[in-house]
Amino acid sequence: MTFTTQAEIKSFGGKLVKLQHDSKETKTKMDVNLYLPEQYYEQPDSKLPVLLYLSGLTCTPNNCSEKGFWQPYANKYGFAVVYPDTSPRGASIEGEDESYDFGSGAGFYVDATEEKWSKNYRMYSYILKELLPNLASSYSRLDFNNMSITGHSMGGYGALMFYLRNPGRFKSVSAFSPISNPSNCAWGQKCFGGYLGADKSKWAEYDPSELVKKYDGPDTPILIHTGTADPFYFRDHQLLPENLVKASEDSKLKGKIDLHLEEGYDHSYYFISSFTKDHAAHHAKYLGLSPKL
Amino acid sequence: MTFTTQAEIKSFGGKLVKLQHDSKETKTKMDVNLYLPEQYYEQPDSKLPVLLYLSGLTCTPNNCSEKGFWQPYANKYGFAVVYPDTSPRGASIEGEDESYDFGSGAGFYVDATEEKWSKNYRMYSYILKELLPNLASSYSRLDFNNMSITGHSMGGYGALMFYLRNPGRFKSVSAFSPISNPSNCAWGQKCFGGYLGADKSKWAEYDPSELVKKYDGPDTPILIHTGTADPFYFRDHQLLPENLVKASEDSKLKGKIDLHLEEGYDHSYYFISSFTKDHAAHHAKYLGLSPKL
Repeated sequence: MTFTTQAEIKSFGGKLVKLQHDSKETKTKMDVNLYLPEQYYEQPDSKLPVLLYLSGLTCTPNNCSEKGFWQPYANKYGFAVVYPDTSPRGASIEGEDESYDFGSGAGFYVDATEEKWSKNYRMYSYILKELLPNLASSYSRLDFNNMSITGHSMGGYGALMFYLRNPGRFKSVSAFSPISNPSNCAWGQKCFGGYLGADKSKWAEYDPSELVKKYDGPDTPILIHTGTADPFYFRDHQLLPENLVKASEDSKLKGKIDLHLEEGYDHSYYFISSFTKDHAAHHAKYLGLSPKL
Repeated sequence: MTFTTQAEIKSFGGKLVKLQHDSKETKTKMDVNLYLPEQYYEQPDSKLPVLLYLSGLTCTPNNCSEKGFWQPYANKYGFAVVYPDTSPRGASIEGEDESYDFGSGAGFYVDATEEKWSKNYRMYSYILKELLPNLASSYSRLDFNNMSITGHSMGGYGALMFYLRNPGRFKSVSAFSPISNPSNCAWGQKCFGGYLGADKSKWAEYDPSELVKKYDGPDTPILIHTGTADPFYFRDHQLLPENLVKASEDSKLKGKIDLHLEEGYDHSYYFISSFTKDHAAHHAKYLGLSPKL
């Protein structure tokens, strides 16, 4: 697989590289952004860790690249950031563009099994088995074996899910306003039902509040921030982070879910960017990085 | 004049307040964003300085609020940030929405004299004589007598122009990729010609590279950053910061234009946010602010 470079934009001493490639998993063109910190350019013998950031409903790779404000912290510690897209685009499936919370922009990081979606909506395999290995081949100075994962909302769910399903694959995980128990909220039920069908045993394979119960990897703390003024949290009960904490109580991660409910914050990038600094420091610790003097 | 609050969004400990009001100058509703740092809430006896940020072509108050990343530095030093809109909106003037660089989103911070535009396109008076005094009345804990000004592109021009036309009104000025000599570039000629007519003596009253020649205020250094990979700089010659430096050579500001040409940076918010930190430190110095420990 070859990436084509759509743009290279200098930012905070490093560069945001906008890439595109043909995906075998989704059978579409896929966009992905990659932020390379200044260490990538200034220290040609270095091998840099990677942070994988998964975005929420409706987002492209650009939203968090512009508004999440990872760049200064990527430079402070010296890690690259990968921003994948949130679904296939233009798969020519009837209805794929009809709603913001299913289809385009809402791949939910699963491999669909329902026939209509199963050919293209393979975001789980796309990210883990195609995108990351191919980035590793193209960017040999990035260390995809020293990688952490984070994300927001649907992407916060995605980060928790990839981490808990693949013990040891990621050094640490954190999440902003994650959909923590998708089997029990409207967003999750719509996407799991639509992509995976009615059999809830299949949903459990992707639900962080189920996966945590049988997780048997390292007991690294999991950092979560959720705003108390987030209507998807307090009004719509889409996020349910307490369910994840409760589910962890009989698991190896008992006491390891570090949930911060932040007074007065909402669901937007104004919230995410306010706490990017804390999440960067969390991952830097487990990636073995020290702040630049 | 009464402001109505459209939204209050917590960000970095402070709040971004989205305001709307009926403007007598533009005879339209106008949006303005105001960032109040955490000191505003935590230190009820404080009186905080203000930074006025003027945006570029096509922008609303939201673009820089989301992508400019002033919030952490507003908190670090303790100043408020005002983000006005870039023109009247919905003035019902024929052709106002036809191009990105004239009419809506492109008020160029002048008081139009050409009849078609003169009723509404009064951004100079709107900002200086209406918006700032009315914000001062509504927010008595903000010190609009201890205020600095900055901006990007058309807003960088605006910042320089307001500063040079009103000696002593602003404690300091800085600009990101400013249109520094609008009388001699296509953007400026289109807007000055359209709003002010053919008489170039009227243009000179708004052109920083003319205003600097007769400026007689404090000789505070002026901080400017421009990217060398900015196509509006190197290809289209819209920005012409060297003309401002040259014009200053026989003026009171000789040697005081601190122009940084930044290798490889473009015209976007990826560029602005990379240097927000430096501009915040510049203004903090002249606003008498020290960094929070």
